[in-house]
Amino acid sequence: MKRRDFFKNTAFAAAGAAVLSPIQSVANVSRRDISDRLAGKLAKNIIFMVSDGMSSGTLSMANMLSERRDGRLCEWISLYQRGVVNRGLMDTASANSLVTDSAAASSSWGGGVRVNNGALNIAPDGSRPVPILQKFKAAGKAVGCVTSVPITHATPAGFCVNIGSRSAQAEIALMYHDLRFDVMMGGGTEFFSAEKRKDKQDVFGKFAASGYQVAKNRKEMLAIDSKGGDAPILGVFHQDGLPYALDRENDETMKNSTPSLAEMTGTAIRHLQKSRNGFVLQVEAGKVDWAAHANDTGGVLYDQLAFDETLATVLAFAEADGDTLVIVTTDHGNANPGLFGATKDFEKVFGFRHTNDWVLQGIDRDFTAAQVRERIEHAQGYAISANEAIQLLAHYVTDRNEDGLYNPYKLPFADLAAIQQKYTAIAWASTGHSGDHVEVAAFGPGQELLKPFVRNTDMHNLLLEASGVAVR
Amino acid sequence: MKRRDFFKNTAFAAAGAAVLSPIQSVANVSRRDISDRLAGKLAKNIIFMVSDGMSSGTLSMANMLSERRDGRLCEWISLYQRGVVNRGLMDTASANSLVTDSAAASSSWGGGVRVNNGALNIAPDGSRPVPILQKFKAAGKAVGCVTSVPITHATPAGFCVNIGSRSAQAEIALMYHDLRFDVMMGGGTEFFSAEKRKDKQDVFGKFAASGYQVAKNRKEMLAIDSKGGDAPILGVFHQDGLPYALDRENDETMKNSTPSLAEMTGTAIRHLQKSRNGFVLQVEAGKVDWAAHANDTGGVLYDQLAFDETLATVLAFAEADGDTLVIVTTDHGNANPGLFGATKDFEKVFGFRHTNDWVLQGIDRDFTAAQVRERIEHAQGYAISANEAIQLLAHYVTDRNEDGLYNPYKLPFADLAAIQQKYTAIAWASTGHSGDHVEVAAFGPGQELLKPFVRNTDMHNLLLEASGVAVR
Repeated sequence: MKRRDFFKNTAFAAAGAAVLSPIQSVANVSRRDISDRLAGKLAKNIIFMVSDGMSSGTLSMANMLSERRDGRLCEWISLYQRGVVNRGLMDTASANSLVTDSAAASSSWGGGVRVNNGALNIAPDGSRPVPILQKFKAAGKAVGCVTSVPITHATPAGFCVNIGSRSAQAEIALMYHDLRFDVMMGGGTEFFSAEKRKDKQDVFGKFAASGYQVAKNRKEMLAIDSKGGDAPILGVFHQDGLPYALDRENDETMKNSTPSLAEMTGTAIRHLQKSRNGFVLQVEAGKVDWAAHANDTGGVLYDQLAFDETLATVLAFAEADGDTLVIVTTDHGNANPGLFGATKDFEKVFGFRHTNDWVLQGIDRDFTAAQVRERIEHAQGYAISANEAIQLLAHYVTDRNEDGLYNPYKLPFADLAAIQQKYTAIAWASTGHSGDHVEVAAFGPGQELLKPFVRNTDMHNLLLEASGVAVR
Repeated sequence: MKRRDFFKNTAFAAAGAAVLSPIQSVANVSRRDISDRLAGKLAKNIIFMVSDGMSSGTLSMANMLSERRDGRLCEWISLYQRGVVNRGLMDTASANSLVTDSAAASSSWGGGVRVNNGALNIAPDGSRPVPILQKFKAAGKAVGCVTSVPITHATPAGFCVNIGSRSAQAEIALMYHDLRFDVMMGGGTEFFSAEKRKDKQDVFGKFAASGYQVAKNRKEMLAIDSKGGDAPILGVFHQDGLPYALDRENDETMKNSTPSLAEMTGTAIRHLQKSRNGFVLQVEAGKVDWAAHANDTGGVLYDQLAFDETLATVLAFAEADGDTLVIVTTDHGNANPGLFGATKDFEKVFGFRHTNDWVLQGIDRDFTAAQVRERIEHAQGYAISANEAIQLLAHYVTDRNEDGLYNPYKLPFADLAAIQQKYTAIAWASTGHSGDHVEVAAFGPGQELLKPFVRNTDMHNLLLEASGVAVR
């Protein structure tokens, strides 16, 4: 069986139903095998994987959850245990702060230059470094991005465009159209739909008119995947970010309407691998960052595990392919969570059915304390006290916005997390990004280029050098 | 100049006055040099360095402080940048918890077996693994421990003894006497002095009667160092833990009466290196952990830098010597601090003169809010608000203990840290240990034995294998 066929079959099965077992597919690769196989070889393909806003404790807790619940290391840590990757510690600062935002962080990789927070590949001196996917496209490779947040969001955008502000997402959607990249998938319908855009442009229509295969739900994506056509793919599956992995897993409607990150990634790889000159794909678990901002344990840990499942999909391809460099990293820490108490409290997380986002979005000012307690117990398997429920309800008295909906940014995320701390033993230092140095690992041809300590900007030239594309 | 002479001169200068510049001494060692030099070589000496309770953010912030204030990476990160170490991620769990204490953590290294929190090398099944310094002593090596907390504390004790409870420090002092190790230095006068011990035994006297050179202050330590005698050394320099590095640096009396961690370590190495069969030394920055429990930014960051300065001393020896394996690690995370805001706020830390411990110990219930503000401004260079000072003073109304002193464990450490967060942008997730996986790095003969992912217990056999001492 040819390598490509092997992947086609196994990964398509994964996208449709079951999840690949990465352990079976790569457990027999030793460090020596890797170095023998890769000596002097260029990376034909690159898959750059970002768990956005992943503090050290996030990775540690996801690994502990995997190990205690499922009896195996998570895929990321398993790469370390098997000794098959080069590993580095990355300084994540931006041009104007030790604490970066995602725009400056992605620009550091995408443009190779540190920019101020909020900017996308516009340097403080006004210069505009060419974003890396434009370089790879010009070099003849197929390119794309997949994310669990809007596809116009900072992390994918930092690989694609030059623009002064990350918040210009409606503009970024138009820039994507002009770039004609090969696969762009994630959330963000509001920036593509004529009804939702302020300028009433039908950006979906523009993509279709330019020959794109457009998917607006999971079924459409799987149909495109199954058909296997050559036309580029735009997939936009949700108004804003995609659902949290935990909420999606426990909601059949969501599960049918939106793809998982692993499913999008599998579809993207199957499409991109048709390129004779190889491909470069960025994959972002963007909602790990959103969950960390909200101190949402179920969001952070299960989206981190969804990232890990995606890593398994990617490694199954990369190992079968042999020509693919996989980078696994994060852009910055966020909230520095940790487990600070009893193992039995941590194990409550095994039984979670829903995130705090799901819990808080569904509470109404007319709820009784008993109803709040019942909702949390249904979602996460433990009961908070009546007083704690009353304390939480107090936040629902005011702050309805014009549409009669609670502003999600005013919901009492940090307050609920503070209450939960005594039940789960998980606590958070902040609701913002941290300046911590972060993990980066490399697997495949060129992995030896990763040094043990790097600046985020170093990754730009590393990707170019590993693939033999000229450094400009 | 002979290697030993080189170290003798330079490090003695460091102990007496200036700090070694590690960059000058080891910057020219490339990874290739190291691997060529070390191929197949056994470690004659081992120096096992522990920054106790060091979360990922602690190391990151110490490095940012070093880089922004002094224009150079901290010594630990510099080892990564130069590519001269093997680096691993360590799972720190104990037998009964994902979140270890220092006793179980040190036992995992010292005995190679996971024990319950609180125990020192007594396994859950009652078995008593032989502590590693006893193994090395039996193999003919000189052995010892140096720490900034009581020498009878959990981390050194885990390398030395078997006992059911870490809190039996008075008993541990007696066990040390019977072990007759070569160098034991740190704090903990209360466990050695006849006046302070409940049983009124003169443990200092017992050590002296057994032929030890005993030092009770810095001057006595330097005299012993200078004399260079062969008799074993006991150094106990403070009632409890030694002063925080920052407080010591800004207090001439403390600076003259107590040695720094780097000074103790230099003295220990000069003594131990006389051993023909080599030596094994544990070095602990124990007050990094104490400061993290207290969310004390000045304590954590400057004691981490004192650890880093000690690492420079150790590397200067190890590099000149060529036969020494250096392990650099922590036993567990603590409080998961991070920088969560503006760089200019972080830079306030450059001007710190005293820790929060110094600030809070010196406040009296009769203080006015203005006096509290003045004390903090003197200690740390910024003024908190009058309301915040009043809020802090509220904690001083009750809680005097029998001696008329405030119980240090009741001082409002976490409250002060919460106030400071808006001035320094540094925040904390907890006042306890975290379950995070942690950094471990190895330099010198045997460094290649360190795998990228390890359990804490793996370190036990690694030390034995690296030195060629039989694994029992």
